[in-house]
Amino acid sequence: MQSVEIDRSKRLKEEPEKGHNRWHPDIPPILEVEEGEEVVLETRDASDCQIQPGMTEADLAGLDAKVAHPLTGPVYIKGAEPGDLLEIEYLDIVAQPRGWTRNRPGAGFLRDIFTEPYLAHWQIEDGWATSPQIPGVRIIDGSFMGTAGIAPSHEQLRAWAAREADLVSRGGTAAPPDPEDAVPSGGTIAEMGLRTLPPRENCGNVDAKQLTKGSRLLIPVNVAGALYSAGDGHFAQGDSECCITAIEMGATAAVRFKLLKGAAARHNIRFPRYAHPGYFLPPEWAAPRNFIATMGMPIRADGTQEGEDYLTLAARNALINMIELLQDRGWSKEQAYIICSVAVDLKISNIVDLPNVTVSAFLPEDIFQG
Amino acid sequence: MQSVEIDRSKRLKEEPEKGHNRWHPDIPPILEVEEGEEVVLETRDASDCQIQPGMTEADLAGLDAKVAHPLTGPVYIKGAEPGDLLEIEYLDIVAQPRGWTRNRPGAGFLRDIFTEPYLAHWQIEDGWATSPQIPGVRIIDGSFMGTAGIAPSHEQLRAWAAREADLVSRGGTAAPPDPEDAVPSGGTIAEMGLRTLPPRENCGNVDAKQLTKGSRLLIPVNVAGALYSAGDGHFAQGDSECCITAIEMGATAAVRFKLLKGAAARHNIRFPRYAHPGYFLPPEWAAPRNFIATMGMPIRADGTQEGEDYLTLAARNALINMIELLQDRGWSKEQAYIICSVAVDLKISNIVDLPNVTVSAFLPEDIFQG
Amino acid sequence: MQSVEIDRSKRLKEEPEKGHNRWHPDIPPILEVEEGEEVVLETRDASDCQIQPGMTEADLAGLDAKVAHPLTGPVYIKGAEPGDLLEIEYLDIVAQPRGWTRNRPGAGFLRDIFTEPYLAHWQIEDGWATSPQIPGVRIIDGSFMGTAGIAPSHEQLRAWAAREADLVSRGGTAAPPDPEDAVPSGGTIAEMGLRTLPPRENCGNVDAKQLTKGSRLLIPVNVAGALYSAGDGHFAQGDSECCITAIEMGATAAVRFKLLKGAAARHNIRFPRYAHPGYFLPPEWAAPRNFIATMGMPIRADGTQEGEDYLTLAARNALINMIELLQDRGWSKEQAYIICSVAVDLKISNIVDLPNVTVSAFLPEDIFQG
Amino acid sequence: MQSVEIDRSKRLKEEPEKGHNRWHPDIPPILEVEEGEEVVLETRDASDCQIQPGMTEADLAGLDAKVAHPLTGPVYIKGAEPGDLLEIEYLDIVAQPRGWTRNRPGAGFLRDIFTEPYLAHWQIEDGWATSPQIPGVRIIDGSFMGTAGIAPSHEQLRAWAAREADLVSRGGTAAPPDPEDAVPSGGTIAEMGLRTLPPRENCGNVDAKQLTKGSRLLIPVNVAGALYSAGDGHFAQGDSECCITAIEMGATAAVRFKLLKGAAARHNIRFPRYAHPGYFLPPEWAAPRNFIATMGMPIRADGTQEGEDYLTLAARNALINMIELLQDRGWSKEQAYIICSVAVDLKISNIVDLPNVTVSAFLPEDIFQG
Repeated sequence: MQSVEIDRSKRLKEEPEKGHNRWHPDIPPILEVEEGEEVVLETRDASDCQIQPGMTEADLAGLDAKVAHPLTGPVYIKGAEPGDLLEIEYLDIVAQPRGWTRNRPGAGFLRDIFTEPYLAHWQIEDGWATSPQIPGVRIIDGSFMGTAGIAPSHEQLRAWAAREADLVSRGGTAAPPDPEDAVPSGGTIAEMGLRTLPPRENCGNVDAKQLTKGSRLLIPVNVAGALYSAGDGHFAQGDSECCITAIEMGATAAVRFKLLKGAAARHNIRFPRYAHPGYFLPPEWAAPRNFIATMGMPIRADGTQEGEDYLTLAARNALINMIELLQDRGWSKEQAYIICSVAVDLKISNIVDLPNVTVSAFLPEDIFQG
Repeated sequence: MQSVEIDRSKRLKEEPEKGHNRWHPDIPPILEVEEGEEVVLETRDASDCQIQPGMTEADLAGLDAKVAHPLTGPVYIKGAEPGDLLEIEYLDIVAQPRGWTRNRPGAGFLRDIFTEPYLAHWQIEDGWATSPQIPGVRIIDGSFMGTAGIAPSHEQLRAWAAREADLVSRGGTAAPPDPEDAVPSGGTIAEMGLRTLPPRENCGNVDAKQLTKGSRLLIPVNVAGALYSAGDGHFAQGDSECCITAIEMGATAAVRFKLLKGAAARHNIRFPRYAHPGYFLPPEWAAPRNFIATMGMPIRADGTQEGEDYLTLAARNALINMIELLQDRGWSKEQAYIICSVAVDLKISNIVDLPNVTVSAFLPEDIFQG
Repeated sequence: MQSVEIDRSKRLKEEPEKGHNRWHPDIPPILEVEEGEEVVLETRDASDCQIQPGMTEADLAGLDAKVAHPLTGPVYIKGAEPGDLLEIEYLDIVAQPRGWTRNRPGAGFLRDIFTEPYLAHWQIEDGWATSPQIPGVRIIDGSFMGTAGIAPSHEQLRAWAAREADLVSRGGTAAPPDPEDAVPSGGTIAEMGLRTLPPRENCGNVDAKQLTKGSRLLIPVNVAGALYSAGDGHFAQGDSECCITAIEMGATAAVRFKLLKGAAARHNIRFPRYAHPGYFLPPEWAAPRNFIATMGMPIRADGTQEGEDYLTLAARNALINMIELLQDRGWSKEQAYIICSVAVDLKISNIVDLPNVTVSAFLPEDIFQG
Repeated sequence: MQSVEIDRSKRLKEEPEKGHNRWHPDIPPILEVEEGEEVVLETRDASDCQIQPGMTEADLAGLDAKVAHPLTGPVYIKGAEPGDLLEIEYLDIVAQPRGWTRNRPGAGFLRDIFTEPYLAHWQIEDGWATSPQIPGVRIIDGSFMGTAGIAPSHEQLRAWAAREADLVSRGGTAAPPDPEDAVPSGGTIAEMGLRTLPPRENCGNVDAKQLTKGSRLLIPVNVAGALYSAGDGHFAQGDSECCITAIEMGATAAVRFKLLKGAAARHNIRFPRYAHPGYFLPPEWAAPRNFIATMGMPIRADGTQEGEDYLTLAARNALINMIELLQDRGWSKEQAYIICSVAVDLKISNIVDLPNVTVSAFLPEDIFQG
């Protein structure tokens, strides 16, 4: 078993030999492993250890802004070649004892509604997270790596940067390459490396909450050695992570790799897949049995009807309806938004009953302490 | 206990005193019940009993097209008034022994890809559905009413018809009022009644698969007596019902009503909600624990990057990736589409990691017979 | 599919062509089935329909005493021969709408403590049993056949009768053959047929609560055709059925047979086995997750220590401790005993920590209505 | 938070200030805690660290024989007085990476059948235990403290010793006080202290596998400060622990105490109780859903019928039938016995169907690696 230990009293830029925060094929591996070998990676939280207990919203303004996501890696898997499918099995994911969730003005799904910063700290103990900012709520351990992926090829790097630039030119939002806060700092990698915020074909920040202990993540390999990295541990999250942060934490991930030789090429697999046999999954309230759900349809606040292409609007409405439900129970709007981000699941009830495709937002009742 | 018994050897138009297939406040109630009283409603399938065992794709062409959805009702709940919140508790939902799933050209989420009709028959026995058209697959009982709702007010009727007409005028798809196949036939109700295909604020065809036995549906009341109707039983369905049909069946629903007086007005609740305490829920493979998932992001087939507003595109890609996965396992494209509609869940993994908001499609492995 | 329909307004003796209440190889089959064929059997409750809604303890005195258990059958399975292992798969078990539980003086595990008759009626509706005699408690559907088995051979009949007679001669309790209330009445079968109260190698009244829908029961075949019969439906029961009745009901069982040719002889299997894949099992509160448990050890009330051979005493103490716990919560002693019989599980915590082998009694908290 | 750290490279006798292996009210506390305070206790395995990886059956002969059970403690809970009920909440129980299970000739439930020593080593990693001696089997984490209890009063000490001596005088088996290997060594405590093998009213070695993380154990307090101690961690065990060892391991237990003042006196509670809300319970295969079960009835191998008082014989027969089932699947008799001890549950199916009270042995099929 090999492992990478980090010093969480330091920022990633102070330990650049342990990780990186941009995707680029030329970042050198920090470890070489055999197929089937267990590897343990210690990781920093998404703020690169900048957010600490005792901080308030006022302290958030001064943080370095483009550090996300400090990843530990890359790990070179011997024998991996383009065209293979890499399977990453999560043997264990262990939380650090502190976490946080924030609303970041200008980001998040409801950023037009939530324009002020908000910060909740979480204590993580014995499998539960509780927060003095959100009293009476407890969240059970559903730890997973928010960000985990492998290196793109040079060709992908160019193509993906180009398609995102094209989107920006059409008025859309993306995160173009930016050397500010980049690790490694300076040089081509900092200048051209892809930001880690968007997930892509190489997986990365996909924020799929089901990638818990026991799951297997499958990614088509793009470069020799695959170059796997991980970070951005989440103790718990709702499907959709609506305020753009989950219960963010430092984590330790134990993983094992398997190579399905040539399988990605053979089956033309271009996007990640994942699977879970069901053991170790978080219990019912993370896949909630005792729930209350709100619905959203693609109808604007002014009554305008939209159709099938407006699933995002349906999701937005389901979420707003859930926030109102939580406000009726006495939570502040900000608390409600945080609760949604860490515990409420958005599922697509129907995508065919035109024009009213429907998203439902599921609140697990068991998060509320008896 | 009161009940409405129907004759499923007849079409709804032959028993118009038992139900209707348009939403309109002037449809007279067929039953009056007290709050707390149990009511049993027998219902027809979505085809109004037109699709029968032994039929093939060729037989589908001649069917009456605008019969959906034959509903049993309305039931007048004494004491219900606008501003109340009506709670419908599903005490039991029992399946008829035959079901079907079809792909209908021109409808369904992937209608550009699936242009030919396809029909699968299901035998329902001892809690399982199996189909000679999809051998080796079995689906466990997750019975719910695909369509259930209450009457709109006259004002809502007008407003909803108007907003949908406006959408059509902007090139969108909706289902405008149409007297063809309407029950009641002729007159204002047939001319002006809302089609039942889209769900709306009065619930209706919301196709939320979690509304199983034991669930409670909450709808803001619009007219005196509320006027509840139900139909379109589904034996099982994936979140999203991608090919526009589930395992469609006749069903018997036992329900009980409760009035939360003034609650909709007091809390400004305009859309339905629902809840479930967790008992009687279908087992793990309907809320799958042992799964494999594909991912979709808002990137077009030609590589064009889209962003946050294209959740529909992400859903489409997740679904196409799942269909390809099933094809790799040896299923035909058409079988794969049906399997997705009846068993694959679409969940929103993230809606914030711009531009690549991500939808995951979950296939429960336990549908495949050992 | 073949079926046996009965008239529950009649006693078994009025429909003797549909069943029997003694085990004997010469009882003629009422049905012949193929391996793999589904068979549906309607069955009477353990009182042979004598206990009816509205009856009180006073009415119990006059009942025919030796009618247990009216079984429907036997069913002749073609091809079954001694040495085979017969597998009975329970496709479905459906409850009648009324049930009862009684304490019968002189019977039951704590018959020295509970010396008065007690009768609780249950209403069974939508998957729940509730009783006016035990308000505030509801029990979820866990239907199974308390008694189901196959015919013994003539040799077994003699040997089993002999070993039980020997026990009685040593002061033990058994139920020797007795023609009173026997069906078929008169003749050798009534005189010599084995009473159905004790389970034996041919299964019978084993009262294993896990034999629910979806389970498979395996019994070594003793005579040609096996001769399967079933009755004594239980809507729910705790492991141990301490007051000697469960929630007793009429039931309908759908079963299917499979023959493992020669398997019993080959593997020397002399007692029944059973298995369950886990689908359709009653939910957590029948295999309780949210529980409180009491313990019992083999120490007499006067402080005398007994050892390993006194597991019965440990079970008794665990049960008495649970009854006291329920009394502390406000239930009468009689209500508590009934609750234990229908919902409390006795499990062997250890059988090795001598002298204090330990039995735990598990009370599922979810039986109490919120 | 206070904690007791131990050095597992040492025997308890080398760190006698950290624990004890006899029950006696005069053993001085090693820690004083407040009600509600979290306490972390590191504990040794049942062999007092004598059994090490690489050892074989031959090495077992030379071990110190009377070291069981090295306990960490006692902990003095401020305010605890006789008549109170002490609640111990298990916040977490963490396994050491190595475990073992042995058959010890002369001990164990089937000691007449299993007369040779047998030793299996287990590797514990990522929530699973696997053993080279039992290949193809894996056992999921179900960690609990096999032994945990509080001090008896002097009066109880005398009474319990006396009743056990009386049993021995009648030919029974118990474990009388014995200074050999005692910690503290020498003096009255070693001479008179109760052996920890039997559980008693003060709990101790009750081996209830449901006392996992999240459970609460309630014991009537006998002396001021209660004096809680714990040890003998089990990674997994079947109900009954038939070969007298579970997966034995060193463990770390985090606990918190609560005092129910006077509750034991008020309600006359003389034996321990325990409860679990259901979170963190081991998954289905530790409370098995997918199982196969054998049955046992009180019938001797020579055919002699026994009755109600012979539940132990029924348990024995159920277990022997399960061992035969496992042998039919290819396991050796010794492997089968170990599998039963660590994974097979004995439940009392009925204790009323005289004479054949029935015990069922449940084997969870999911322990076998696919």
